[in-house]
Amino acid sequence: MASNSKRKPTQASFGSVPQAVVNRLSYYLRELQHLVRQGVQTISSSQLGQRLGFTDAQVRKDLAYFGQFGYPGIGYRCEELITAIRRILGTDQQWPVALVGVGNLGTALLGYKGFAQQGFVFQAAFDNDPAKVGMTLGGVKVYPLERLPEVVRSHKIRLGILAVPASAAQEVADRLVEAGIQGILNFAPVTITVPPQVSLVEVDLAMELEQLSFAVLHRQRKTC
Amino acid sequence: MASNSKRKPTQASFGSVPQAVVNRLSYYLRELQHLVRQGVQTISSSQLGQRLGFTDAQVRKDLAYFGQFGYPGIGYRCEELITAIRRILGTDQQWPVALVGVGNLGTALLGYKGFAQQGFVFQAAFDNDPAKVGMTLGGVKVYPLERLPEVVRSHKIRLGILAVPASAAQEVADRLVEAGIQGILNFAPVTITVPPQVSLVEVDLAMELEQLSFAVLHRQRKTC
Repeated sequence: MASNSKRKPTQASFGSVPQAVVNRLSYYLRELQHLVRQGVQTISSSQLGQRLGFTDAQVRKDLAYFGQFGYPGIGYRCEELITAIRRILGTDQQWPVALVGVGNLGTALLGYKGFAQQGFVFQAAFDNDPAKVGMTLGGVKVYPLERLPEVVRSHKIRLGILAVPASAAQEVADRLVEAGIQGILNFAPVTITVPPQVSLVEVDLAMELEQLSFAVLHRQRKTC
Repeated sequence: MASNSKRKPTQASFGSVPQAVVNRLSYYLRELQHLVRQGVQTISSSQLGQRLGFTDAQVRKDLAYFGQFGYPGIGYRCEELITAIRRILGTDQQWPVALVGVGNLGTALLGYKGFAQQGFVFQAAFDNDPAKVGMTLGGVKVYPLERLPEVVRSHKIRLGILAVPASAAQEVADRLVEAGIQGILNFAPVTITVPPQVSLVEVDLAMELEQLSFAVLHRQRKTC
Protein backbone atom coordinates (compact mmCIF):
# COMPACT_ATOMS: atom_id res chain seq x y z
CA MET A 1 0.00 0.00 0.00
CA ALA A 2 1.49 3.27 -1.12
CA SER A 3 0.05 5.31 1.75
CA ASN A 4 1.74 2.96 4.14
CA SER A 5 5.15 3.00 2.55
CA LYS A 6 6.76 5.34 5.03
CA ARG A 7 5.92 3.00 7.87
CA LYS A 8 6.91 -0.16 6.13
CA PRO A 9 9.98 -1.52 7.89
CA THR A 10 13.14 -2.24 6.00
CA GLN A 11 13.55 -5.80 7.10
CA ALA A 12 17.31 -5.91 6.80
CA SER A 13 17.67 -3.15 9.38
CA PHE A 14 16.16 -5.14 12.22
CA GLY A 15 18.96 -7.66 12.59
CA SER A 16 20.58 -5.66 15.38
CA VAL A 17 17.45 -5.12 17.47
CA PRO A 18 18.02 -6.58 20.96
CA GLN A 19 16.39 -9.95 21.46
CA ALA A 20 14.52 -8.73 24.53
CA VAL A 21 12.79 -6.11 22.38
CA VAL A 22 11.67 -8.71 19.84
CA ASN A 23 10.45 -10.81 22.73
CA ARG A 24 8.37 -7.93 24.08
CA LEU A 25 6.82 -7.44 20.63
CA SER A 26 5.19 -10.84 21.10
CA TYR A 27 3.72 -9.65 24.39
CA TYR A 28 2.47 -6.37 22.89
CA LEU A 29 0.87 -8.38 20.09
CA ARG A 30 -0.91 -10.75 22.50
CA GLU A 31 -2.18 -7.90 24.63
CA LEU A 32 -3.40 -5.90 21.61
CA GLN A 33 -5.18 -8.95 20.21
CA HIS A 34 -6.81 -9.41 23.60
CA LEU A 35 -7.87 -5.73 23.69
CA VAL A 36 -9.36 -5.87 20.21
CA ARG A 37 -11.43 -8.89 21.19
CA GLN A 38 -12.77 -6.74 24.04
CA GLY A 39 -13.70 -3.98 21.58
CA VAL A 40 -10.86 -1.57 22.45
CA GLN A 41 -9.82 0.51 19.42
CA THR A 42 -7.00 2.76 20.68
CA ILE A 43 -4.58 2.62 23.60
CA SER A 44 -1.83 4.86 24.96
CA SER A 45 1.70 3.66 25.56
CA SER A 46 1.20 4.06 29.31
CA GLN A 47 -2.01 1.99 29.28
CA LEU A 48 -0.39 -0.72 27.18
CA GLY A 49 2.70 -0.67 29.38
CA GLN A 50 0.66 -0.80 32.56
CA ARG A 51 -1.17 -3.92 31.43
CA LEU A 52 2.15 -5.67 30.89
CA GLY A 53 4.18 -4.20 33.73
CA PHE A 54 6.41 -2.00 31.55
CA THR A 55 6.86 1.77 31.65
CA ASP A 56 5.36 3.89 28.87
CA ALA A 57 8.90 4.94 27.93
CA GLN A 58 9.83 1.28 27.45
CA VAL A 59 6.86 0.69 25.16
CA ARG A 60 7.65 3.75 23.05
CA LYS A 61 11.35 2.92 22.87
CA ASP A 62 10.68 -0.69 21.87
CA LEU A 63 8.29 0.27 19.09
CA ALA A 64 10.56 3.09 17.89
CA TYR A 65 13.03 0.44 16.66
CA PHE A 66 10.52 -0.44 13.98
CA GLY A 67 8.84 2.82 12.99
CA GLN A 68 6.45 5.48 14.19
CA PHE A 69 3.15 4.02 15.28
CA GLY A 70 1.45 6.41 17.70
CA TYR A 71 -0.84 9.35 16.95
CA PRO A 72 -0.68 12.51 19.12
CA GLY A 73 -3.68 12.68 21.44
CA ILE A 74 -4.90 9.23 20.35
CA GLY A 75 -2.15 6.75 21.14
CA TYR A 76 -1.90 3.58 19.13
CA ARG A 77 -4.69 2.29 16.91
CA CYS A 78 -4.84 -1.33 18.08
CA GLU A 79 -5.67 -2.99 14.75
CA GLU A 80 -3.02 -0.97 12.95
CA LEU A 81 -0.36 -1.82 15.52
CA ILE A 82 -1.32 -5.51 15.40
CA THR A 83 -0.86 -5.46 11.62
CA ALA A 84 2.50 -3.74 11.98
CA ILE A 85 3.82 -6.11 14.65
CA ARG A 86 2.67 -9.16 12.72
CA ARG A 87 4.51 -7.83 9.68
CA ILE A 88 7.65 -7.25 11.74
CA LEU A 89 7.52 -10.69 13.37
CA GLY A 90 6.66 -12.29 10.06
CA THR A 91 3.34 -13.70 11.25
CA ASP A 92 1.44 -11.75 8.58
CA GLN A 93 2.47 -14.60 6.31
CA GLN A 94 1.99 -18.35 6.57
CA TRP A 95 5.01 -20.38 7.58
CA PRO A 96 4.96 -24.01 6.48
CA VAL A 97 6.40 -26.01 9.37
CA ALA A 98 7.71 -29.56 9.73
CA LEU A 99 7.74 -31.44 13.01
CA VAL A 100 10.37 -34.11 13.62
CA GLY A 101 9.75 -36.61 16.40
CA VAL A 102 6.21 -37.80 17.00
CA GLY A 103 6.51 -38.80 20.67
CA ASN A 104 4.39 -37.34 23.45
CA LEU A 105 5.81 -33.85 23.02
CA GLY A 106 5.58 -33.97 19.22
CA THR A 107 2.00 -35.20 19.36
CA ALA A 108 1.14 -32.42 21.82
CA LEU A 109 2.74 -29.83 19.52
CA LEU A 110 0.80 -31.12 16.49
CA GLY A 111 -2.39 -30.51 18.45
CA TYR A 112 -1.35 -27.10 19.81
CA LYS A 113 -3.94 -24.58 18.61
CA GLY A 114 -1.80 -21.49 19.15
CA PHE A 115 0.56 -22.17 16.24
CA ALA A 116 -1.93 -21.94 13.37
CA GLN A 117 -3.48 -18.82 14.93
CA GLN A 118 -0.15 -17.04 14.47
CA GLY A 119 0.43 -18.36 10.94
CA PHE A 120 2.52 -21.46 11.66
CA VAL A 121 1.02 -24.38 9.76
CA PHE A 122 2.26 -27.94 10.08
CA GLN A 123 2.71 -29.45 6.62
CA ALA A 124 4.32 -32.72 7.63
CA ALA A 125 5.63 -34.72 10.57
CA PHE A 126 8.51 -37.16 10.55
CA ASP A 127 9.46 -40.13 12.69
CA ASN A 128 11.54 -43.25 12.18
CA ASP A 129 9.15 -45.50 14.10
CA PRO A 130 7.35 -47.67 11.49
CA ALA A 131 4.33 -47.82 13.82
CA LYS A 132 3.91 -44.05 13.52
CA VAL A 133 4.73 -43.57 9.84
CA GLY A 134 1.56 -43.23 7.77
CA MET A 135 -0.55 -42.02 10.69
CA THR A 136 -2.36 -38.69 10.53
CA LEU A 137 -2.19 -36.68 13.77
CA GLY A 138 -4.04 -33.40 14.14
CA GLY A 139 -4.56 -33.51 10.38
CA VAL A 140 -0.83 -33.88 9.73
CA LYS A 141 0.68 -36.91 7.98
CA VAL A 142 3.66 -38.70 9.51
CA TYR A 143 6.44 -39.53 7.02
CA PRO A 144 9.57 -41.62 7.48
CA LEU A 145 12.72 -39.57 8.09
CA GLU A 146 14.23 -40.66 4.76
CA ARG A 147 11.60 -38.65 2.96
CA LEU A 148 12.53 -35.41 4.76
CA PRO A 149 14.42 -33.72 1.87
CA GLU A 150 11.74 -34.50 -0.68
CA VAL A 151 8.76 -33.53 1.51
CA VAL A 152 10.43 -30.33 2.78
CA ARG A 153 11.03 -29.24 -0.80
CA SER A 154 7.64 -30.23 -2.19
CA HIS A 155 5.77 -28.49 0.65
CA LYS A 156 8.14 -25.50 0.65
CA ILE A 157 8.66 -26.01 4.38
CA ARG A 158 10.73 -23.19 5.95
CA LEU A 159 10.78 -24.00 9.67
CA GLY A 160 11.46 -27.23 11.50
CA ILE A 161 10.52 -28.15 15.05
CA LEU A 162 12.76 -30.70 16.76
CA ALA A 163 10.96 -32.87 19.30
CA VAL A 164 13.36 -35.81 19.19
CA PRO A 165 15.44 -37.27 22.03
CA ALA A 166 18.64 -35.37 22.85
CA SER A 167 20.77 -38.13 21.34
CA ALA A 168 19.19 -37.68 17.89
CA ALA A 169 18.88 -33.88 17.88
CA GLN A 170 22.09 -32.87 16.10
CA GLU A 171 21.74 -35.52 13.40
CA VAL A 172 18.15 -34.54 12.67
CA ALA A 173 19.08 -30.85 12.70
CA ASP A 174 21.79 -31.58 10.12
CA ARG A 175 19.22 -33.30 7.95
CA LEU A 176 16.83 -30.35 8.24
CA VAL A 177 19.64 -27.98 7.26
CA GLU A 178 20.57 -30.15 4.28
CA ALA A 179 16.94 -30.16 3.21
CA GLY A 180 17.09 -26.35 3.03
CA ILE A 181 15.15 -25.41 6.15
CA GLN A 182 15.66 -21.76 7.24
CA GLY A 183 14.98 -21.97 10.95
CA ILE A 184 14.87 -24.60 13.70
CA LEU A 185 12.98 -24.54 16.99
CA ASN A 186 14.73 -27.06 19.23
CA PHE A 187 12.82 -28.68 22.08
CA ALA A 188 15.44 -31.40 22.62
CA PRO A 189 17.24 -30.77 25.91
CA VAL A 190 20.64 -30.37 24.25
CA THR A 191 22.52 -27.59 22.48
CA ILE A 192 22.80 -28.06 18.72
CA THR A 193 24.82 -26.15 16.15
CA VAL A 194 23.63 -24.94 12.77
CA PRO A 195 25.38 -23.05 9.96
CA PRO A 196 25.20 -19.23 9.93
CA GLN A 197 22.44 -19.04 7.32
CA VAL A 198 20.04 -21.01 9.53
CA SER A 199 18.27 -19.45 12.52
CA LEU A 200 17.94 -21.37 15.73
CA VAL A 201 15.75 -20.90 18.78
CA GLU A 202 16.28 -23.31 21.64
CA VAL A 203 13.44 -23.95 24.06
CA ASP A 204 14.57 -24.85 27.55
CA LEU A 205 11.46 -25.58 29.56
CA ALA A 206 13.39 -25.62 32.84
CA MET A 207 14.17 -21.94 32.29
CA GLU A 208 10.47 -21.14 32.57
CA LEU A 209 10.39 -22.95 35.90
CA GLU A 210 13.49 -21.02 37.02
CA GLN A 211 11.70 -17.76 36.27
CA LEU A 212 8.83 -19.06 38.38
CA SER A 213 10.99 -20.09 41.33
CA PHE A 214 12.67 -16.67 41.23
CA ALA A 215 9.26 -15.00 41.18
CA VAL A 216 8.05 -17.09 44.13
CA LEU A 217 11.22 -16.45 46.14
CA HIS A 218 11.22 -12.74 45.45
CA ARG A 219 7.45 -12.26 45.32
CA GLN A 220 7.12 -11.10 41.79
CA ARG A 221 3.58 -11.31 40.61
CA LYS A 222 3.89 -12.30 37.01
CA THR A 223 6.68 -12.58 34.51
CA CYS A 224 6.63 -11.76 30.87
CA MET B 1 28.89 -19.49 55.55
CA ALA B 2 30.06 -16.44 57.48
CA SER B 3 32.75 -15.50 54.97
CA ASN B 4 30.11 -15.33 52.31
CA SER B 5 27.72 -13.16 54.20
CA LYS B 6 28.56 -9.95 52.40
CA ARG B 7 27.67 -11.50 49.07
CA LYS B 8 24.52 -13.19 50.18
CA PRO B 9 21.65 -11.49 48.41
CA THR B 10 18.82 -9.98 50.37
CA GLN B 11 16.02 -11.78 48.63
CA ALA B 12 13.38 -9.13 49.24
CA SER B 13 15.40 -6.59 47.27
CA PHE B 14 15.21 -8.49 43.99
CA GLY B 15 11.51 -7.98 43.41
CA SER B 16 12.15 -4.95 41.20
CA VAL B 17 14.84 -6.49 39.00
CA PRO B 18 13.69 -6.32 35.35
CA GLN B 19 12.35 -9.60 34.06
CA ALA B 20 14.77 -9.56 31.12
CA VAL B 21 17.67 -9.58 33.59
CA VAL B 22 16.27 -12.58 35.45
CA ASN B 23 15.80 -14.26 32.09
CA ARG B 24 19.44 -13.66 31.17
CA LEU B 25 20.54 -15.18 34.50
CA SER B 26 19.18 -18.47 33.22
CA TYR B 27 21.33 -18.13 30.10
CA TYR B 28 24.44 -17.23 32.12
CA LEU B 29 23.80 -20.27 34.30
CA ARG B 30 23.46 -22.63 31.31
CA GLU B 31 26.63 -21.29 29.70
CA LEU B 32 28.63 -21.49 32.94
CA GLN B 33 27.45 -25.06 33.55
CA HIS B 34 28.52 -25.88 29.99
CA LEU B 35 31.95 -24.25 30.55
CA VAL B 36 32.53 -26.14 33.80
CA ARG B 37 31.77 -29.43 32.04
CA GLN B 38 34.52 -28.45 29.59
CA GLY B 39 36.95 -27.83 32.45
CA VAL B 40 36.91 -24.02 32.35
CA GLN B 41 37.46 -22.51 35.80
CA THR B 42 37.35 -18.74 35.28
CA ILE B 43 35.88 -16.46 32.64
CA SER B 44 35.79 -12.71 32.00
CA SER B 45 32.58 -10.76 31.49
CA SER B 46 33.56 -10.12 27.87
CA GLN B 47 34.20 -13.82 27.18
CA LEU B 48 30.92 -14.81 28.83
CA GLY B 49 29.07 -12.07 26.97
CA GLN B 50 30.65 -13.00 23.67
CA ARG B 51 29.48 -16.59 23.98
CA LEU B 52 25.90 -15.41 24.43
CA GLY B 53 25.89 -12.39 22.16
CA PHE B 54 25.81 -9.77 24.92
CA THR B 55 28.30 -6.96 25.62
CA ASP B 56 30.61 -7.25 28.62
CA ALA B 57 28.91 -4.16 30.08
CA GLN B 58 25.55 -5.94 29.88
CA VAL B 59 26.91 -8.98 31.73
CA ARG B 60 28.44 -6.84 34.48
CA LYS B 61 25.32 -4.68 34.80
CA ASP B 62 23.03 -7.72 35.01
CA LEU B 63 25.09 -9.42 37.68
CA ALA B 64 25.53 -6.16 39.64
CA TYR B 65 21.83 -6.32 40.52
CA PHE B 66 22.63 -9.28 42.72
CA GLY B 67 26.05 -8.60 44.19
CA GLN B 68 29.72 -8.40 43.35
CA PHE B 69 30.97 -11.54 41.71
CA GLY B 70 34.09 -10.77 39.68
CA TYR B 71 37.73 -10.69 40.79
CA PRO B 72 40.13 -8.10 39.36
CA GLY B 73 42.49 -9.73 36.86
CA ILE B 74 40.66 -13.07 37.10
CA GLY B 75 37.07 -12.49 36.09
CA TYR B 76 34.38 -14.78 37.41
CA ARG B 77 35.10 -18.10 39.06
CA CYS B 78 32.64 -20.31 37.16
CA GLU B 79 31.68 -22.65 40.01
CA GLU B 80 31.22 -19.77 42.41
CA LEU B 81 29.05 -17.84 39.96
CA ILE B 82 26.97 -20.96 39.26
CA THR B 83 26.36 -21.34 42.99
CA ALA B 84 25.40 -17.68 43.29
CA ILE B 85 23.02 -17.71 40.32
CA ARG B 86 21.36 -20.91 41.49
CA ARG B 87 20.82 -19.32 44.88
CA ILE B 88 19.32 -16.21 43.27
CA LEU B 89 17.04 -18.21 40.99
CA GLY B 90 16.16 -20.54 43.82
CA THR B 91 17.45 -23.65 42.09
CA ASP B 92 19.93 -24.33 44.90
CA GLN B 93 16.94 -25.86 46.64
CA GLN B 94 14.54 -28.59 45.59
CA TRP B 95 11.11 -27.49 44.46
CA PRO B 96 8.39 -30.12 44.82
CA VAL B 97 6.20 -29.78 41.73
CA ALA B 98 2.74 -31.06 40.80
CA LEU B 99 1.62 -31.60 37.22
CA VAL B 100 -2.05 -31.30 36.35
CA GLY B 101 -3.23 -32.82 33.08
CA VAL B 102 -1.66 -36.07 31.94
CA GLY B 103 -2.28 -35.78 28.19
CA ASN B 104 0.45 -35.83 25.57
CA LEU B 105 2.03 -32.62 26.81
CA GLY B 106 1.76 -33.61 30.47
CA THR B 107 3.28 -37.00 29.78
CA ALA B 108 6.12 -35.35 27.85
CA LEU B 109 6.74 -32.94 30.74
CA LEU B 110 6.83 -35.80 33.28
CA GLY B 111 9.61 -37.36 31.21
CA TYR B 112 11.53 -34.11 30.66
CA LYS B 113 15.01 -34.59 32.07
CA GLY B 114 15.89 -30.92 32.36
CA PHE B 115 13.57 -30.21 35.28
CA ALA B 116 15.14 -32.45 37.89
CA GLN B 117 18.62 -31.26 36.87
CA GLN B 118 17.65 -27.75 37.97
CA GLY B 119 15.98 -28.88 41.19
CA PHE B 120 12.35 -29.22 40.07
CA VAL B 121 11.05 -32.59 41.20
CA PHE B 122 7.64 -33.94 40.29
CA GLN B 123 5.93 -35.27 43.39
CA ALA B 124 2.53 -36.02 41.92
CA ALA B 125 0.45 -35.77 38.77
CA PHE B 126 -3.32 -35.24 38.56
CA ASP B 127 -5.94 -36.05 35.97
CA ASN B 128 -9.66 -36.65 36.04
CA ASP B 129 -9.55 -39.50 33.51
CA PRO B 130 -10.15 -42.75 35.46
CA ALA B 131 -8.03 -44.60 32.89
CA LYS B 132 -4.99 -42.51 33.90
CA VAL B 133 -5.53 -42.34 37.66
CA GLY B 134 -3.32 -44.85 39.45
CA MET B 135 -0.76 -45.01 36.65
CA THR B 136 2.89 -44.23 37.31
CA LEU B 137 4.55 -42.15 34.54
CA GLY B 138 8.23 -41.28 34.68
CA GLY B 139 8.17 -42.50 38.27
CA VAL B 140 5.32 -40.13 39.17
CA LYS B 141 1.95 -41.33 40.42
CA VAL B 142 -1.25 -40.01 38.84
CA TYR B 143 -3.95 -39.01 41.36
CA PRO B 144 -7.56 -37.97 40.78
CA LEU B 145 -8.12 -34.21 40.86
CA GLU B 146 -10.22 -34.47 44.02
CA ARG B 147 -7.13 -35.47 45.95
CA LEU B 148 -5.22 -32.32 44.93
CA PRO B 149 -5.51 -30.41 48.24
CA GLU B 150 -4.50 -33.39 50.34
CA VAL B 151 -1.58 -34.51 48.14
CA VAL B 152 -0.25 -30.95 47.67
CA ARG B 153 -0.18 -30.53 51.45
CA SER B 154 1.26 -33.92 52.30
CA HIS B 155 4.06 -33.60 49.71
CA LYS B 156 4.64 -29.90 50.52
CA ILE B 157 4.24 -29.12 46.80
CA ARG B 158 5.05 -25.47 46.03
CA LEU B 159 4.75 -25.20 42.25
CA GLY B 160 2.07 -26.44 39.88
CA ILE B 161 2.35 -27.02 36.14
CA LEU B 162 -0.89 -26.69 34.18
CA ALA B 163 -1.05 -28.92 31.10
CA VAL B 164 -4.84 -29.10 30.84
CA PRO B 165 -7.07 -27.93 27.97
CA ALA B 166 -7.76 -24.19 27.83
CA SER B 167 -11.35 -24.73 28.95
CA ALA B 168 -10.24 -26.29 32.26
CA ALA B 169 -7.25 -24.05 33.00
CA GLN B 170 -8.82 -21.40 35.23
CA GLU B 171 -10.77 -23.91 37.30
CA VAL B 172 -7.69 -26.06 37.88
CA ALA B 173 -5.60 -22.95 38.66
CA ASP B 174 -8.19 -21.96 41.30
CA ARG B 175 -7.91 -25.42 42.84
CA LEU B 176 -4.10 -25.19 42.92
CA VAL B 177 -4.34 -21.77 44.60
CA GLU B 178 -6.83 -23.09 47.16
CA ALA B 179 -4.49 -25.98 47.88
CA GLY B 180 -1.81 -23.44 48.81
CA ILE B 181 0.48 -23.62 45.78
CA GLN B 182 2.91 -20.66 45.49
CA GLY B 183 3.53 -20.55 41.75
CA ILE B 184 1.91 -21.80 38.56
CA LEU B 185 3.51 -22.50 35.18
CA ASN B 186 0.68 -22.39 32.66
CA PHE B 187 1.02 -24.28 29.37
CA ALA B 188 -2.70 -24.02 28.57
CA PRO B 189 -3.15 -21.62 25.63
CA VAL B 190 -5.31 -19.20 27.65
CA THR B 191 -4.69 -16.37 30.10
CA ILE B 192 -5.53 -17.22 33.69
CA THR B 193 -5.72 -15.01 36.76
CA VAL B 194 -4.32 -15.78 40.19
CA PRO B 195 -4.35 -13.83 43.47
CA PRO B 196 -1.42 -11.49 44.23
CA GLN B 197 0.33 -13.90 46.57
CA VAL B 198 0.70 -16.51 43.81
CA SER B 199 3.31 -16.19 41.03
CA LEU B 200 2.39 -17.04 37.49
CA VAL B 201 4.49 -17.75 34.40
CA GLU B 202 2.60 -18.35 31.19
CA VAL B 203 4.24 -20.37 28.43
CA ASP B 204 3.11 -19.48 24.94
CA LEU B 205 4.85 -21.83 22.56
CA ALA B 206 3.81 -19.80 19.52
CA MET B 207 5.93 -16.94 20.86
CA GLU B 208 9.02 -19.08 20.42
CA LEU B 209 8.08 -19.65 16.79
CA GLU B 210 7.50 -15.91 16.35
CA GLN B 211 11.02 -15.26 17.59
CA LEU B 212 12.20 -17.78 15.03
CA SER B 213 10.25 -16.27 12.12
CA PHE B 214 11.62 -12.85 13.07
CA ALA B 215 15.14 -14.29 13.13
CA VAL B 216 14.68 -15.94 9.74
CA LEU B 217 13.20 -12.79 8.18
CA HIS B 218 15.85 -10.53 9.59
CA ARG B 219 18.73 -13.02 9.48
CA GLN B 220 19.50 -13.22 13.13
CA ARG B 221 21.62 -16.18 13.92
CA LYS B 222 20.37 -17.30 17.25
CA THR B 223 18.07 -15.92 19.87
CA CYS B 224 18.43 -16.10 23.58
